[in-house]
Amino acid sequence: MKLLEERIIKDGKVFPGNVLKVDRFLNHQVDVKLLNEIGKEFYRLFGDKEVNKIFTIEASGIGIACIVAQYFDVPVVFAKKTLGKNISADVYSTPITSFTHGRTYDVIVSQEFLNPEDKILIIDDFLAQGCALQGLINLIKSAGAEIVGAGIVIEKAFQQGGELIRSQGIRVESLARVKSMSDDGTITFCD
Amino acid sequence: MKLLEERIIKDGKVFPGNVLKVDRFLNHQVDVKLLNEIGKEFYRLFGDKEVNKIFTIEASGIGIACIVAQYFDVPVVFAKKTLGKNISADVYSTPITSFTHGRTYDVIVSQEFLNPEDKILIIDDFLAQGCALQGLINLIKSAGAEIVGAGIVIEKAFQQGGELIRSQGIRVESLARVKSMSDDGTITFCD
Repeated sequence: MKLLEERIIKDGKVFPGNVLKVDRFLNHQVDVKLLNEIGKEFYRLFGDKEVNKIFTIEASGIGIACIVAQYFDVPVVFAKKTLGKNISADVYSTPITSFTHGRTYDVIVSQEFLNPEDKILIIDDFLAQGCALQGLINLIKSAGAEIVGAGIVIEKAFQQGGELIRSQGIRVESLARVKSMSDDGTITFCD
Repeated sequence: MKLLEERIIKDGKVFPGNVLKVDRFLNHQVDVKLLNEIGKEFYRLFGDKEVNKIFTIEASGIGIACIVAQYFDVPVVFAKKTLGKNISADVYSTPITSFTHGRTYDVIVSQEFLNPEDKILIIDDFLAQGCALQGLINLIKSAGAEIVGAGIVIEKAFQQGGELIRSQGIRVESLARVKSMSDDGTITFCD
C-alpha cells in the first residue's frame, strides 16, 4: 500500500535493535484518515470472504480494528493482556511473549465472544516474531472458530513471524512489508 | 442517550462492589455501530467548539476515540500505561490509580503529541472515581494545552469523579449517568 509506505518513510523512525517507531500516525498519535484508507484496503483484500467478527489484541490493535470493522459491518473483539477483576473466569487464554516489552503476558478472551460458528479476520498493527499473531490464532482455535485470515498493517519481513504463520496455511496480508531497516534510518520495502 | 441506556439495561451486568460490566458491547466485544451513534452524539455536544485533537487512555478508550474522531476530522492521541522500550524519554507522565485493577500506573504521553496550541477533547469509556480523567487532565496541563471538555460514555454518578472534575470548571458530558446499581442487577439512570 503505497500511501502507507510513504507515510512510514516520512514519519517512521528506526532505532537500534530493529525497532521501527510509527507512533506519529499509528500507535500513539493515530491518523484516523489513514486508518480509513487501511480499512478500505483490508476490505478490498478480504471483502469477498464471509467475515462476521474482527479479532485483535489490546492496545494498539483496537483503534485499527474498530475502523476496519466499519467496512465489514461487524463487531470487534479484542484480547486482553491481564486478568482484571472485571473479567469472568470463563476465558480462553494463551501466553504471548512481547519482545518489545521484554515480558510474557497471559492473553485472554471471554469464551462468550468467540464461538465455533465465527468466521474471524484478525487485525493487528505489527507482525515481527509472530508471537502476538500466534497467540490470537491459538485463542481462535481454542474456540473452534474459523480463521479467514490476518490483516497486518506493517510486517517486518526480515523476521520470522510471517513465514511461521503462513506455513500453517493461514492467509496473511500485510499492507507494508519492510525488507530492511538500517541504523541510519533507511527503510526498504519488499516488492 | 436513550439508545445507550437501553443497551446498558439489556447487556450490562452488575457485580458486587459497584462493578458494571459492559464487555458485550463496549470494552471487550465492541459494537462499532453503537460507537458511531456515540460519535454523533459527542459531535452534537462539542461540534460547535474548536477541537483539533482527541485524547484518551489505553486500552478501552482507543476504539471509542478513533470512531469519535471521524466526526471531528482530527487525530487521536492515546496515553500509555507503561514505559515501553519504544517510547522516547521525552514524555509527560502522571500516576493513575485503577480501582478496577487495584494498582497504580505511570501514564505517559510523548511531549511531541501535546502542544500549547492544542484544543483537546478528552474521550473515555468510564468515569467513576475520576482518577483516569484527572490523570489525562494533568497531562494536558503539563503541555499547556486547552481542555475543551471531556466526553464520557458511562458515568457512575453515585461516585465522586464527576463532581471532582466539574468542580475544576471542566465541562464533562456523559452519555449515560448511572444513578444506582443493585446487586440484583437493577440499574437506574439520572434524569
